[in-house]
Amino acid sequence: MTHKIAILGASGYTGAELVRLIATHPTMEIAALAANSKAGLSIAQVFPHLRHLSLPDLVKIDEIDFSGIDLCFCALPHATSQAVIRELPNSLKIVDLSADFRLRDTEEYARWYGGQHDALDCQAEAVYGLTEFYRDEIRSARLVAGTGCNAATGQYALRPLIEDGVIDLDDIIIDLKTGVSGAGRSLKENLLHAELSEGAHAYAVGGTHRHLAEFDQEFSKIAGREVKVQFTPHLLPANRGIVATVYVKGSPDAVHASLSAAYAAEPFVEVLPFGEQPSTRHIRGSNFCHIGVSGDRIEGRAIVIAALDNLTKGSSGQALQNANLMLGEDETAGLMLAPIFP
Amino acid sequence: MTHKIAILGASGYTGAELVRLIATHPTMEIAALAANSKAGLSIAQVFPHLRHLSLPDLVKIDEIDFSGIDLCFCALPHATSQAVIRELPNSLKIVDLSADFRLRDTEEYARWYGGQHDALDCQAEAVYGLTEFYRDEIRSARLVAGTGCNAATGQYALRPLIEDGVIDLDDIIIDLKTGVSGAGRSLKENLLHAELSEGAHAYAVGGTHRHLAEFDQEFSKIAGREVKVQFTPHLLPANRGIVATVYVKGSPDAVHASLSAAYAAEPFVEVLPFGEQPSTRHIRGSNFCHIGVSGDRIEGRAIVIAALDNLTKGSSGQALQNANLMLGEDETAGLMLAPIFP
Amino acid sequence: MTHKIAILGASGYTGAELVRLIATHPTMEIAALAANSKAGLSIAQVFPHLRHLSLPDLVKIDEIDFSGIDLCFCALPHATSQAVIRELPNSLKIVDLSADFRLRDTEEYARWYGGQHDALDCQAEAVYGLTEFYRDEIRSARLVAGTGCNAATGQYALRPLIEDGVIDLDDIIIDLKTGVSGAGRSLKENLLHAELSEGAHAYAVGGTHRHLAEFDQEFSKIAGREVKVQFTPHLLPANRGIVATVYVKGSPDAVHASLSAAYAAEPFVEVLPFGEQPSTRHIRGSNFCHIGVSGDRIEGRAIVIAALDNLTKGSSGQALQNANLMLGEDETAGLMLAPIFP
Amino acid sequence: MTHKIAILGASGYTGAELVRLIATHPTMEIAALAANSKAGLSIAQVFPHLRHLSLPDLVKIDEIDFSGIDLCFCALPHATSQAVIRELPNSLKIVDLSADFRLRDTEEYARWYGGQHDALDCQAEAVYGLTEFYRDEIRSARLVAGTGCNAATGQYALRPLIEDGVIDLDDIIIDLKTGVSGAGRSLKENLLHAELSEGAHAYAVGGTHRHLAEFDQEFSKIAGREVKVQFTPHLLPANRGIVATVYVKGSPDAVHASLSAAYAAEPFVEVLPFGEQPSTRHIRGSNFCHIGVSGDRIEGRAIVIAALDNLTKGSSGQALQNANLMLGEDETAGLMLAPIFP
Repeated sequence: MTHKIAILGASGYTGAELVRLIATHPTMEIAALAANSKAGLSIAQVFPHLRHLSLPDLVKIDEIDFSGIDLCFCALPHATSQAVIRELPNSLKIVDLSADFRLRDTEEYARWYGGQHDALDCQAEAVYGLTEFYRDEIRSARLVAGTGCNAATGQYALRPLIEDGVIDLDDIIIDLKTGVSGAGRSLKENLLHAELSEGAHAYAVGGTHRHLAEFDQEFSKIAGREVKVQFTPHLLPANRGIVATVYVKGSPDAVHASLSAAYAAEPFVEVLPFGEQPSTRHIRGSNFCHIGVSGDRIEGRAIVIAALDNLTKGSSGQALQNANLMLGEDETAGLMLAPIFP
Repeated sequence: MTHKIAILGASGYTGAELVRLIATHPTMEIAALAANSKAGLSIAQVFPHLRHLSLPDLVKIDEIDFSGIDLCFCALPHATSQAVIRELPNSLKIVDLSADFRLRDTEEYARWYGGQHDALDCQAEAVYGLTEFYRDEIRSARLVAGTGCNAATGQYALRPLIEDGVIDLDDIIIDLKTGVSGAGRSLKENLLHAELSEGAHAYAVGGTHRHLAEFDQEFSKIAGREVKVQFTPHLLPANRGIVATVYVKGSPDAVHASLSAAYAAEPFVEVLPFGEQPSTRHIRGSNFCHIGVSGDRIEGRAIVIAALDNLTKGSSGQALQNANLMLGEDETAGLMLAPIFP
Repeated sequence: MTHKIAILGASGYTGAELVRLIATHPTMEIAALAANSKAGLSIAQVFPHLRHLSLPDLVKIDEIDFSGIDLCFCALPHATSQAVIRELPNSLKIVDLSADFRLRDTEEYARWYGGQHDALDCQAEAVYGLTEFYRDEIRSARLVAGTGCNAATGQYALRPLIEDGVIDLDDIIIDLKTGVSGAGRSLKENLLHAELSEGAHAYAVGGTHRHLAEFDQEFSKIAGREVKVQFTPHLLPANRGIVATVYVKGSPDAVHASLSAAYAAEPFVEVLPFGEQPSTRHIRGSNFCHIGVSGDRIEGRAIVIAALDNLTKGSSGQALQNANLMLGEDETAGLMLAPIFP
Repeated sequence: MTHKIAILGASGYTGAELVRLIATHPTMEIAALAANSKAGLSIAQVFPHLRHLSLPDLVKIDEIDFSGIDLCFCALPHATSQAVIRELPNSLKIVDLSADFRLRDTEEYARWYGGQHDALDCQAEAVYGLTEFYRDEIRSARLVAGTGCNAATGQYALRPLIEDGVIDLDDIIIDLKTGVSGAGRSLKENLLHAELSEGAHAYAVGGTHRHLAEFDQEFSKIAGREVKVQFTPHLLPANRGIVATVYVKGSPDAVHASLSAAYAAEPFVEVLPFGEQPSTRHIRGSNFCHIGVSGDRIEGRAIVIAALDNLTKGSSGQALQNANLMLGEDETAGLMLAPIFP
């Protein structure tokens, strides 16, 4: 059986990545592509790398007849997403890639995103989309909220450690480096090639990045108490890839054992042998997350390093993994593409 | 039915690219991986991006029992390849990715490659591997010689034009720009990141690049007379991708019509609408070749621009396409992966 | 004696490059910096790399008292430049970096730039700023028009050859590759890092790039007859640097001799030994232009390759070189900075 | 008065950077360039970007007559450096850029560098070359040991804080990101463009990087007790630039005040306004170090970020700054070049 898929926001990078992945999916068919600002154009005009595919032209969202759609990916900007999803049919399965439905607490949402949520009902029912940890809820969900790409990376490194109680909860530092595609296809001076190439810098320093809201929500929930981490993102001169270097206090062996056990059966999360380190270039273009653990020379301290592709495992690949579950398909369908190196 | 595949020279970039592509191939199984200098290592140690695959460890070539192998890819250096292939069983189907069997004329080989060929029998039977133009011969060949990556790019732009007689044969210029992975994984000062990043330069200027031998052989054969082109390769600060800008004298409309007709039924070669230009970033990681045609402001001159990924359509993808034909499989099997952008 | 300098358009890349160069100039002092959109900001806020310099804050153009200014650099967008320069005091020496005053023929200007010129008087008196060829006129000029960066590169390769009559004037091809900073600091989707990194493509193919107007004007003037070249620019994934590969018909030896003689006494133009090729990374950040000549395997054809930094020798360095002449200073003052490599 | 300078190891990146800087130095003249492996070549053959300079050809070290040399820069590999320096005339002033003379304790040297030191006398007299903190000793030194580039970056961020007692000495984490030129011009697979471009990874994780020996030595000396930091270096896809993100426990205001006071009079170290962050692209090619301080959302924790160019302030620029002091010149001579951006 073929599932009919719609993608809203198909002219952005996560939209393009969804199309790329679904292109070789065995049981999905793209039935509608929407991008209000580029309605009327063909996919070849918006994304020439997808020109070999037979796909419908881009339309406005309200031109789509959702009655024939089985599942809809929303790759729209924050805030826009909630306004659109609120109006979609109740029967439609939805995977949202924006930040709009990630937070369970309406006040936290208002605090981090600066305003009242416009689709509180949807927010209430949404399931947090970190597949490996919400698999059962996702399988039966109508609306799944894709995680932040940085938030996913940090959580892969830390959730089992918090769950297993092997680290000090009051002294966790996530120093994260991310490629530029995470910022999307928006016209900002600081995203120009001439501004970014051959350099690196930190941003949102000191606890202001919105993905902290996800860390707070999830880590505190697991721990059963408030957990606040330090988190500093840096921008890399690379298009894809996140590497998060996480500093924890705890036994390095216990840390490695905890992570190894947690992900032993996972198809996409690989814990490297103790002392080896991942690289963003070894997961590029794939749905894999590589995690390495080393002990520091100072006893009782460990460094956990997680790497994934922000556009794949960090958003569109994760979204497809969740969609597979929601549609009763094999969770890995369409997602076993090997990374591209070099 | 599953075909058992061996890859010789699996520790280089074209070897890794073969593994990447075969990883999702429906009817191929990698039964042996050889790399003399890294024998004993696992693929994860040599190419961490392939660590999720269940693959045999690397061995020395002479450790392989070829009786169970259906087809063997040779991704070995020039000269090494002929010495190895000469000793392989006669019944084994072989796709060679080196330069050793590309030239039909033994004297031309000696002139361009500086020495006598060591496997003249094999050279005599080898079929030139530019799939779209040698499809029938490849289907029944035992030994197929993969083309040079630059040679492939130039030929996609020019073969139909020479065949159709729509351009001046005495005034053809190929100005080509290539990413660095075409030079392989060899330790040379001029391939260091610090030497290449953020710059560009020409090399092998004036008619010394060995891929000219392929241009000479093929273009002269098509034209039925000697054809000598000018060819200047340049090195780009990018890992993958070749873009060849070809200057010809002839009617731009006729040029576009000739190319459009030649590739109308081809699954991997796309001729863009007149006046549009390809980009290496829109074919990255895929087996597609995009071709654009524009007329110059000077009447009777056209510019043809062809782009492909040197590691995929330029070598390992082409090799797999040929292997599919040799094994009676669908020519596109395992090759419809969409390009990765951004 | 110290010359008081004003820079209009100081928030763009050529403006920043002027400040960088003047920072170590022995006899110039920056007295005013204007950037209408960023008036009120300090240079450290607009260009943090210049924060160590003691400089006036950015103001609006009409806030500058030009009576105390000896020379003004205009690094404004095309069209804006002519409107501003028209209103500047007649006594003020001006080096314009825009395209507004490069063309001598008002009809040619209208044809290439799509409209009537608004400062015809200024256009009439402006001197074309390719220093090595207009040195005397520049020395006594009030208004010098900086050349296009691509136009400069092509002219360094070709002017002596046309002057000396050593090449066929009807068959000249300039295949040019340029870094992205030539496009300025403007917010365009195709200048984003994620769009440009790790790829290459041609643009303005077939004779539509405006720098052709400069080639036409200058080459025809030298030849005493109409000369029309073919010119194809390509965008490189690099911030700085242009390499122009020029295909000509003529004796390679004569070509090399012509260029060597023409530039023998020039401080900034270096002709390499016959058969050597320049690289953009070897002139980065400097005012040097490197030129290489090779013969093709086809007799009577030569390849000339010129490389320079678009922001330095291609615009701001050239502008400073011209300003030095206009102010009676040593032409090389402030410009002998060595290239930055790696 | 002009000082005669010799550079040993002139064919590496730090050697080239020394030449670049000295090229515009008002009172230094390069009298000898040595590079044993490339003796007999001109500088233009080894570093084409320096071809405009009139310089002696490269020779073997033992061909240099040191009697006419005032100061010698040694840009040789570790271990080689001590063997060479041991044999140099006692009267010669020397700035060494290797790791050979950085450590005061011979046992620490043996532990980190795996063997006995071969020039213990020289080791005993060498002065640690972090200019801002050893200015007086450097002024009268015969032999100055340039610091590690990573070690310099971390020390600029931390020395004043340890000195002023404003941070917890037992909980310091330096997460550092460095460009690839720090690894030198050596032929290693992991330094190839195809291996590094568009990716990032940590290396020497857990306390194994040799620059830790410098941190230990210097921080413990300042504190008067043992101080051991955590230090994780990462490799960036960029040629130049280090950014160190340092996590400390202490009052952010006190941290900012301490750094601001320490560097208030320094010509090359700039402390940014509180809450602003440096970027490697804003110090590229210059001798400046930019430092930013932010407070974390968790009270009592601060993030200090320092950025410098590893080839300039991190090695060759630092070396020249020290040479200026040793020769009685203005400390900033030849070093006020503005950074190159973009």
